[in-house]
Amino acid sequence: MADEPSKRKRGGGRAGNARRTTSKLPEQMPWRIPVNVDKPTEPLDEDGVHAIHKGAMRILSEIGIEFLNPDACEILKGAGCKVDGTNVRMDEDFVMEMLGHAPAEFTITPRNPNRAIPMGGKHILFGNVSSPPNMWDLKRGKRTGDFEGYKEFIKLTQFFNCIHFAGGYPVEPIDIHARERHLDCLFEKLTLTDKVVHAYSLGKERVEDVMEMVRIAGGMTREEFDAKPHMYTNINSVSPLKHDFPMLEGAMIHARRNQPVIVTPFTLAGAMAPVTMSGAVTLSLAEGLAAIVLLQVINPGAPCAIGTFTSNVDMKTGAPAFGTPEYMRATQMTGQMGRFYGLPIRSSGVCAANVPDGQAMWETSNSLWAAVQSGTNVVYHAAGWLEGGLIASPEKFVMDCDVIQQIQRYMEPATYATTPEDIAVEAIREVGPNGHYFGCQHTQDRYEDAFYSPLISDWSNYEAWELNGGVWTAERAHEMYKGIIEEFEAPPLDIAIRDELADFVARRKAEGGVPTDF
Amino acid sequence: MADEPSKRKRGGGRAGNARRTTSKLPEQMPWRIPVNVDKPTEPLDEDGVHAIHKGAMRILSEIGIEFLNPDACEILKGAGCKVDGTNVRMDEDFVMEMLGHAPAEFTITPRNPNRAIPMGGKHILFGNVSSPPNMWDLKRGKRTGDFEGYKEFIKLTQFFNCIHFAGGYPVEPIDIHARERHLDCLFEKLTLTDKVVHAYSLGKERVEDVMEMVRIAGGMTREEFDAKPHMYTNINSVSPLKHDFPMLEGAMIHARRNQPVIVTPFTLAGAMAPVTMSGAVTLSLAEGLAAIVLLQVINPGAPCAIGTFTSNVDMKTGAPAFGTPEYMRATQMTGQMGRFYGLPIRSSGVCAANVPDGQAMWETSNSLWAAVQSGTNVVYHAAGWLEGGLIASPEKFVMDCDVIQQIQRYMEPATYATTPEDIAVEAIREVGPNGHYFGCQHTQDRYEDAFYSPLISDWSNYEAWELNGGVWTAERAHEMYKGIIEEFEAPPLDIAIRDELADFVARRKAEGGVPTDF
Repeated sequence: MADEPSKRKRGGGRAGNARRTTSKLPEQMPWRIPVNVDKPTEPLDEDGVHAIHKGAMRILSEIGIEFLNPDACEILKGAGCKVDGTNVRMDEDFVMEMLGHAPAEFTITPRNPNRAIPMGGKHILFGNVSSPPNMWDLKRGKRTGDFEGYKEFIKLTQFFNCIHFAGGYPVEPIDIHARERHLDCLFEKLTLTDKVVHAYSLGKERVEDVMEMVRIAGGMTREEFDAKPHMYTNINSVSPLKHDFPMLEGAMIHARRNQPVIVTPFTLAGAMAPVTMSGAVTLSLAEGLAAIVLLQVINPGAPCAIGTFTSNVDMKTGAPAFGTPEYMRATQMTGQMGRFYGLPIRSSGVCAANVPDGQAMWETSNSLWAAVQSGTNVVYHAAGWLEGGLIASPEKFVMDCDVIQQIQRYMEPATYATTPEDIAVEAIREVGPNGHYFGCQHTQDRYEDAFYSPLISDWSNYEAWELNGGVWTAERAHEMYKGIIEEFEAPPLDIAIRDELADFVARRKAEGGVPTDF
Repeated sequence: MADEPSKRKRGGGRAGNARRTTSKLPEQMPWRIPVNVDKPTEPLDEDGVHAIHKGAMRILSEIGIEFLNPDACEILKGAGCKVDGTNVRMDEDFVMEMLGHAPAEFTITPRNPNRAIPMGGKHILFGNVSSPPNMWDLKRGKRTGDFEGYKEFIKLTQFFNCIHFAGGYPVEPIDIHARERHLDCLFEKLTLTDKVVHAYSLGKERVEDVMEMVRIAGGMTREEFDAKPHMYTNINSVSPLKHDFPMLEGAMIHARRNQPVIVTPFTLAGAMAPVTMSGAVTLSLAEGLAAIVLLQVINPGAPCAIGTFTSNVDMKTGAPAFGTPEYMRATQMTGQMGRFYGLPIRSSGVCAANVPDGQAMWETSNSLWAAVQSGTNVVYHAAGWLEGGLIASPEKFVMDCDVIQQIQRYMEPATYATTPEDIAVEAIREVGPNGHYFGCQHTQDRYEDAFYSPLISDWSNYEAWELNGGVWTAERAHEMYKGIIEEFEAPPLDIAIRDELADFVARRKAEGGVPTDF
């Protein structure tokens, strides 16, 4: 992947010299596709993997999954499944045969081919928070999501090189009617970013509108679009044991046109899943695999990934909890099972905290490190998430990006290289017992890139920090967020393509958008 | 290890019924010795381990370590090392032979044998922050450490079951003269806690005073004390390449009396160590192993551990940074090398942040998870550390204990158990696609202990949180800290032993304490 020139290095444009001297844009790491070289943390032994697999297979063959979509039932019946109303049962041999068609890795290429993302293998990708109805910032508190807020988060998504894809809407713009929300949102996504985008699987029309817009943005024919992945969707089951109509419909359209589908059941242990973590993981896998089997029947080899969103509730209140020890183990177990089935793995960056404080960061750190430990390939909600996903916060977005950058630096082989020059016996000899290393040639040759340089961490001592205003992390993040929005420049886009996108949106709005029941 | 009855369950005493109904004491996890079952994260391949080992051996044999203690030099000369003034060189065969004497695991037993801690193997132990000159809290800001503050932190150390030992002074009580500070501090430590305590190796007199006090507190004869570990010390080298007089003196006294010595060089890459992380680790190991070799010569089989305190500086300002990606890799590499040498491993919970905010918690989470990943046996500074160790904070102490408890819960096999009852196919069948799991028998049988219950995390939704005052984590931690101090009760101690300790302190003070040059 080519490095993205940072905004600062870009000459001319709207940001002239005068402006650049007072730039509030942070230095950041270049765009890269991190490779997770660590051996995954695997709590399950061979028997444990077998027990979860057999449990999932028993659910699929004995209990069955409800497919609330007649087409899906028809297709599965045709493939030999036992279909009784909406209940579909499938046996292990069939499931394993169908899963055998799913690729272990595939690449999604957005309108800017330099932003292509390989999904699977040792790669780990990070995406923005998706789908909160509300937003919160330090100055305005909690507010209902709107289009202005949406655009700000899309700008943050584009600005940070450590964010690899633009997932769902980082906040729901409630001020745009649902019949045309996807049109306005995708127009902004496809013009303000050049990263991989996503379609909500909320029925045929929305999915096909998004596909058409992604096709236009990439300057592709329909055949070129259908030939390989250019976007993706994520569907959730309705746990326990159900897949609903529009999600299945959207997923099937994606599969038919070779666009990836991530299937992520949302199983809260003790609520819509067993109170035991391996039980919740088993249910989640059964639901997820059932949908992937359907997609493989439709188009053998269709790109799919298995997601985990297994956490637990607070048993005193029923409130969902995130980034807990149980969440971490569920993520690691799902990672093991994903490798067992040969599927790319999705997990998330999550917390239950309501504001970007200490709790928010230990819960988020727990979930992000669990993603790393589990061998996750795609980390959803990695930046900006608060209140169990009900709030998107720009400060949290910036803070999370500092953590994500650290994870990316952590994965660089330079941090643990052991060439003779790294071991540095000659430098140790040269400096001896009375010198220091600041001035020696070994340091001078390396100091510029030797260490991670943070976005928002303040490493000054207390007195310097206090003289500088005594600013806590969330407030520093607020300043950085405002600066990024102020100086944001959209990535290049051919004006003809932009016009074609605008025309498409205008036409579809004139046609009334998509049908809604409200 | 027996569970410690929680303060709440204790009848009578100073905290009567009326008081208990308004108790501010949190529910917490019982005392336990966590077992770290995860396979360690090992960035080094076999060649990497070999390269660091050979580098350390070349430093020891070709460059040598300065032992600024004539007794130490004499002893090493007698053992066949090449001694030139204070410079001591030793060859690989000798080093490996001596390290072969050091035990891979040993147990330290304090005055309460139920608080004994096994050091080594798969065990991981957590201790309080040690040695900051300053303290900070949310209401009073930054202040110089004093004896009142010291006692508060000792109470927190005793209160939290997840803290296994009372390390160094959690804050330096600057208001007590150095000639008698250790006497007052150890009296409080040995009466306010019943956990393993530590002696600073700041010369013979202090070490022997502490040993005598630990002996008295345990009601032991001198022979009983010397027979096995009852306390420990931690020494630092003066990097690069030096061990100073008083640290070596204290360490040698410990080794002669079978009390454990943790040797922890403080090598900041780019300052007192090479700018490359494996180089800084290699230097650290050479320094650490040299001291352990000395102690094995003095008393083959003396209990020792190898510590790591390798981090990096901010190359723009020279400021130390903690909990960075480079710090994590250095910790993991040292863990691998500790296992290579068959020694228990010490690392730390650290951050550069000045206040207990988001940055503090992501840096601390990075360092605590690195401790877990590295197979660390002893985590120093695990609770209460701010500003690179220059500040102790009670709010941070409480917040860190929530993270440490989560790590301990994470290590419980229940979080990833896969018995048929865990996989729960029958419960999944019973609940079916339209039920929920709150009410089913499988949940009812397990919900009380199913999930981690936090100390200070607030899992309520935004509106409930706001109605409850909209309190951020640090402020919630402040309230909890005040409640713990208010309701603190010291563990039982025989009055005769308490008197004997007080008499010893009075006598030693009357003798003038220990000599100081100020």
